[in-house]
Amino acid sequence: MTPAFEALQNILKKLPGLGYRSAERIALNLLVEKPDQLKSLIRALEEGADKIKSCLYCGNITEDEICSLCENESRNKSQLCVVEQVPDLIAFEKAGAYNGLYHVLHGKLSPLQGISPDDLNIAALEQRILHQEFSEVILALTNDIEGEATCHYLQENLFKQNNIRASRIAFGLPSGGGLVYADPSTLQSALQGRREF
Amino acid sequence: MTPAFEALQNILKKLPGLGYRSAERIALNLLVEKPDQLKSLIRALEEGADKIKSCLYCGNITEDEICSLCENESRNKSQLCVVEQVPDLIAFEKAGAYNGLYHVLHGKLSPLQGISPDDLNIAALEQRILHQEFSEVILALTNDIEGEATCHYLQENLFKQNNIRASRIAFGLPSGGGLVYADPSTLQSALQGRREF
Repeated sequence: MTPAFEALQNILKKLPGLGYRSAERIALNLLVEKPDQLKSLIRALEEGADKIKSCLYCGNITEDEICSLCENESRNKSQLCVVEQVPDLIAFEKAGAYNGLYHVLHGKLSPLQGISPDDLNIAALEQRILHQEFSEVILALTNDIEGEATCHYLQENLFKQNNIRASRIAFGLPSGGGLVYADPSTLQSALQGRREF
Repeated sequence: MTPAFEALQNILKKLPGLGYRSAERIALNLLVEKPDQLKSLIRALEEGADKIKSCLYCGNITEDEICSLCENESRNKSQLCVVEQVPDLIAFEKAGAYNGLYHVLHGKLSPLQGISPDDLNIAALEQRILHQEFSEVILALTNDIEGEATCHYLQENLFKQNNIRASRIAFGLPSGGGLVYADPSTLQSALQGRREF
């Protein structure tokens, strides 16, 4: 294969969900079979890079200063749900189970990967907490060591001193998931989180 | 989601192997988490669109006029293998079962999809047959109706009148299965089992 082809393939295979074979297939499809589609893809990527920004309030993607969720007057502005990434927010929106506001941290604390509080969207969260009145902040971070550490950091450094009531989403068995397929850590959280029936 | 985001997602989901969810994941990854990677991808796509051409002889991808396979002096220049697409050629090269030259048709005859002989890389094939001496042309087209029709067309309109001995790869290939999905051993037996056409 040619150097330009291999350069494209190497970048494509770094995208989430793509490997060597699928990157090769996409590169060939774009370069050999669908030159028009290649042009559209370049345009869409350039337009995306140019137009899409992070919402000044919550960190969601937007083409204006403030995203459509933050500007939506019909949402419950007394609840704030803190998530790691934009896809988490999208998952909640698709589930239709939440009508409050969001805050995207763009990651979680990880000393091993060198991710400190300054690397996360925490300053904006502090500003929101100081200037808006939330009756509750829901922490919807992953149930792993980094997620746990991030929750504790926020609780100690933000919520406690500002008298904010913080909660954490429940961890347990997923809907429809059989016990036999659950991993030990999920079963452990399911047991620990049991409630009066 | 924003219009620019949805435009990018819609183009990504048309790429082979990608669907709605994987396109969303890749778009978010590029736009939110990895802006550097987005820039590299745009550069690689532009470079690919700019540099990569079709080999004047065989139709393989190349950055020069003639591809590296056609220019390789160690290849057997008396054998010509006709394939539908560049990925088919790559599959043969990976199997390491063939050392001759290739000719990429960039498709196969399909009256239903409006693909006629003029839409395929057949004129260049005729020129090669007239000016180079091939002891054998191996037809390595898919084992389906369009592949069959294309083989017959080439046999009747090109090979017969130029006294070219044409063979077809063996029907070791599963019906309807594309060359790219076959494992090297299947490709090898298909080559070895070729019969006079």
